[in-house]
Amino acid sequence: MPLPAEFHDIAKRVNNWGRWGEADEIGTLNLVTDEVVREAAAEVRTGRRVPLALPLKEDGVQSGLIPGRINPLHSMVQINQEIFGPGTVACSDDAVTMGLQAATHWDALTHVSHSGRLYNGRPADTITAHGGAEFGGIDKAPYIVSRGVLLDVAAAKGLDRLPGDHAVTPQDLDEAAEFGRVEVRAGDIVLVRTGQIQVYLAGDKHGYGYPSPGLSVRTPEWFHARDVAAVANDTLTFEIFPPEIEDLWLPVHALDLVEMGMLQGQNWNLESLSTACGEAGRHSFLLSAMPEPFKGATGTPVAPVAVF
Amino acid sequence: MPLPAEFHDIAKRVNNWGRWGEADEIGTLNLVTDEVVREAAAEVRTGRRVPLALPLKEDGVQSGLIPGRINPLHSMVQINQEIFGPGTVACSDDAVTMGLQAATHWDALTHVSHSGRLYNGRPADTITAHGGAEFGGIDKAPYIVSRGVLLDVAAAKGLDRLPGDHAVTPQDLDEAAEFGRVEVRAGDIVLVRTGQIQVYLAGDKHGYGYPSPGLSVRTPEWFHARDVAAVANDTLTFEIFPPEIEDLWLPVHALDLVEMGMLQGQNWNLESLSTACGEAGRHSFLLSAMPEPFKGATGTPVAPVAVF
Amino acid sequence: MPLPAEFHDIAKRVNNWGRWGEADEIGTLNLVTDEVVREAAAEVRTGRRVPLALPLKEDGVQSGLIPGRINPLHSMVQINQEIFGPGTVACSDDAVTMGLQAATHWDALTHVSHSGRLYNGRPADTITAHGGAEFGGIDKAPYIVSRGVLLDVAAAKGLDRLPGDHAVTPQDLDEAAEFGRVEVRAGDIVLVRTGQIQVYLAGDKHGYGYPSPGLSVRTPEWFHARDVAAVANDTLTFEIFPPEIEDLWLPVHALDLVEMGMLQGQNWNLESLSTACGEAGRHSFLLSAMPEPFKGATGTPVAPVAVF
Amino acid sequence: MPLPAEFHDIAKRVNNWGRWGEADEIGTLNLVTDEVVREAAAEVRTGRRVPLALPLKEDGVQSGLIPGRINPLHSMVQINQEIFGPGTVACSDDAVTMGLQAATHWDALTHVSHSGRLYNGRPADTITAHGGAEFGGIDKAPYIVSRGVLLDVAAAKGLDRLPGDHAVTPQDLDEAAEFGRVEVRAGDIVLVRTGQIQVYLAGDKHGYGYPSPGLSVRTPEWFHARDVAAVANDTLTFEIFPPEIEDLWLPVHALDLVEMGMLQGQNWNLESLSTACGEAGRHSFLLSAMPEPFKGATGTPVAPVAVF
Repeated sequence: MPLPAEFHDIAKRVNNWGRWGEADEIGTLNLVTDEVVREAAAEVRTGRRVPLALPLKEDGVQSGLIPGRINPLHSMVQINQEIFGPGTVACSDDAVTMGLQAATHWDALTHVSHSGRLYNGRPADTITAHGGAEFGGIDKAPYIVSRGVLLDVAAAKGLDRLPGDHAVTPQDLDEAAEFGRVEVRAGDIVLVRTGQIQVYLAGDKHGYGYPSPGLSVRTPEWFHARDVAAVANDTLTFEIFPPEIEDLWLPVHALDLVEMGMLQGQNWNLESLSTACGEAGRHSFLLSAMPEPFKGATGTPVAPVAVF
Repeated sequence: MPLPAEFHDIAKRVNNWGRWGEADEIGTLNLVTDEVVREAAAEVRTGRRVPLALPLKEDGVQSGLIPGRINPLHSMVQINQEIFGPGTVACSDDAVTMGLQAATHWDALTHVSHSGRLYNGRPADTITAHGGAEFGGIDKAPYIVSRGVLLDVAAAKGLDRLPGDHAVTPQDLDEAAEFGRVEVRAGDIVLVRTGQIQVYLAGDKHGYGYPSPGLSVRTPEWFHARDVAAVANDTLTFEIFPPEIEDLWLPVHALDLVEMGMLQGQNWNLESLSTACGEAGRHSFLLSAMPEPFKGATGTPVAPVAVF
Repeated sequence: MPLPAEFHDIAKRVNNWGRWGEADEIGTLNLVTDEVVREAAAEVRTGRRVPLALPLKEDGVQSGLIPGRINPLHSMVQINQEIFGPGTVACSDDAVTMGLQAATHWDALTHVSHSGRLYNGRPADTITAHGGAEFGGIDKAPYIVSRGVLLDVAAAKGLDRLPGDHAVTPQDLDEAAEFGRVEVRAGDIVLVRTGQIQVYLAGDKHGYGYPSPGLSVRTPEWFHARDVAAVANDTLTFEIFPPEIEDLWLPVHALDLVEMGMLQGQNWNLESLSTACGEAGRHSFLLSAMPEPFKGATGTPVAPVAVF
Repeated sequence: MPLPAEFHDIAKRVNNWGRWGEADEIGTLNLVTDEVVREAAAEVRTGRRVPLALPLKEDGVQSGLIPGRINPLHSMVQINQEIFGPGTVACSDDAVTMGLQAATHWDALTHVSHSGRLYNGRPADTITAHGGAEFGGIDKAPYIVSRGVLLDVAAAKGLDRLPGDHAVTPQDLDEAAEFGRVEVRAGDIVLVRTGQIQVYLAGDKHGYGYPSPGLSVRTPEWFHARDVAAVANDTLTFEIFPPEIEDLWLPVHALDLVEMGMLQGQNWNLESLSTACGEAGRHSFLLSAMPEPFKGATGTPVAPVAVF
């Protein structure tokens, strides 16, 4: 089934292919200029830090529904091993196996393709089992530090969390910006809070994933108009799931990642951040959310921190 | 063979057990106060960012000498998979297996023990295969953002890199601080450049690991006196290897991690940072080096970034 | 809570420590003599082969309840990769991560300990994260080929499968031997069919694991009296679960593995075997069930085959 | 570079596509009939068993040259864990990550393709990251038990091991059959001993892999003429490496796996088997070499056993 005309209309409006040259592999991260970073650092006034990652553990958010995306299996390969002889300093060492998008993560631009194409018009088959993504892998985005803005959609509506069938619209984003008295600017990293992660934190993995509120197919244009550098939220699927348009699966992924070249983040825990923004009286901060530079990877765990 | 008296003498002088309470699990990270972070942010003047992590790939720094510490094995579990039917948006997804200390990493305080004890006097056997480190795991250090200082020991001596038998002494650190016209302060994260990582970058994994310059057993007191929050460098072993005192293996690990409760970082690529400091005319910057919060882990990959 | 006197009474009666010398690491596998193997081969009359392993796949029997025992995560590391240039022969290659006891498997003798002891009186702490089981690892049992005997307890009772609260007793085993007109002999590998695996095959992983029929604490003496070499069945837990005696968890494991030194197998699919035995009119066959020789491992996947 | 005419000539002569129907996924394993298995069992006269697998361990045969094919990383996920409370039976459990072809293994028929085709004419792109090999995966070959024949080429020539540039020819195979006074029959599994594994056993992993003796491109016709069911040897590459015909890489793989549909085994330790055959005065035996049924896998570890 081909993607509907409606999808292609939006795609045309948000497309950034060629905007930063044919060789570009990082998309809207180009918008995080040195000047943006300087201004982001100026957001630091108290020094308070708020971490946004879920713990990496076997009992993580994955319920088994997404094949291959396994929760981190942590195991010890050395425990207090006196490798240089009895009585010497003893070492402990560990290993992990995990899906790169199992927990709090960034999608790389190559996480999805449509119509055989990746961001910037690259052929989808440049992703191979051998080397992963030849172009646009997460290792091409070596740093993500910018101004962060929380759009607390749930709080703006006076809700703990949005209902499972709520598609976050451009109007919701405007409302949340107003609620936070913040203006979204070029190069910002926007964090959209739905509160959905509370479902996981309360122990219901299945309910966390489905049904889930998330971004509407109408939002990519909103982000595009403001030259946002990246967007993350507190859900498993990022966009509303099941989708708002029947049989149109993952349209926001295709628009953000493939057309616009804008990174997406999922499973970010924005609960403490919501509190901290309330206490600070502002919804902007310095955000560091460095990808682990896995060569050729289509995603990466990330341990973001907001600094007020 | 018990640890020599000399070791215990130093241990006594740098010991921080109880300093932040009996329940403390993060040691010198307590020194990174909100005020320190505010001042760190004030280091940002140009917005230039310098990433310090090696790529995470199968052909990484590990040569097989350290059991269990395997280079990242990246593999694809989905490649352009049209999971919702032909013609729909296609997904790629990947997984990884790796030693947590295989690449650019932080040691957790629990990475080593001696005489049956971990930092803050915890019994070593609180580390188990089941849950990893019950106390002092890397998940207990949820954020590391502070002022970073580069002590470019190699450059201060006019060398590309230190010879393999060079133990970096307190005098070397003083010299490098003077070279960088920087004063190390409480809460700083100190990066010590030896240039040794060039050996790996040139393709010689074995030569990178051994023999290797590194920190002398005399340096923990220097860091302790200045209330440094954490130290990282550009070697596999952190301390000089083989060790400067015969049969005294990993004494710096034991002093820094167990006695002082100070995190160590290894395999940091400080080459571009050295250049950037030279160009900026200063050796201090904002440093974000967030641990991935692996539950109970004794180490973690990290993707640090310096912001000027 | 110490193990009850009742347990220790049985333990005394089935204990084999020292029976094959102090250095012995394979226990009742010593009973599989060359003569036993010759007679086992004589069981082959038609040449029909029946495989007994479940497929190794991500959607396997593990439901997440047993920490660390993850279903096999299979991933491709090469797909039709023309590694020697375009147009050359193309290679595909794969990797796996799995719990060694995740699917159809053998427990090694070291899979459990009690009162600080392993089989043959070895201290439990000879198992380390560094090398696994120093003594009694599965690599010490390099081959398992013998006569196999199916005790089809469910069929003997005219049931598809035993109810979840049914503890298989010595009487049940006698009854099943009579049903199969087979006499259990020294060196035999006994397969006990409960039919429970049908619950998994029907898609209910949780119901498969709990509640589950399984061997009663009364059975180790039965196996001991007959000098059985190993026992496997078609359940997740091997023994009845939850246990028949309150708060006495895994007593059969402790008796079979630690006291008797007899290997146990779990998650064996005995459904086709039941049919084949019926069709062949006999319940004995040649059984090959080779452990994969994982060094120091406390269990191993196994792909058993019965040959009629 | 296309494969040379010479290759295609041989390919035509050994091709088995359609021989067992269009739906066939197991190739020459069809030749292992019930009758063959009965006769194989009749080879058992003494009951002596000889295992042929290398230990599965981190220090295995892989040297890092073949991307993704990592040696087994074994790690403990539980060590003597009293999961039901203090004083209860304690459990140990482990996990592994490994390349499926890292150690003693079978190639599945899908391990290689050429000219876009797999065995039986299936398109190569039926192998995906999502599910592995849709057709001809190793899970389709659920049992391998047959008569085994050792062709001890090294011993027949009075050598400990063949030199690294020796391509094993049909004449060598005839000579070895004569040496062992054995006739290769339809359905046999032929083990070809070069002695090369001694290089690995002596500690030289690199020398083991390269240069290596192995099967000549002339041998597939020999196996085809005799309707051999499968072939394994004691080298890393199976065929001579570097290849005997310049720029014709892996021709034997393409002929055996793709054209003939005949499974290949590598890294089999045939040293003890050579001794055992000498002592038994015969070079045939019952061989059980069960694949682990990894779903969709293009290879599998195997723990073969020869029974005399």
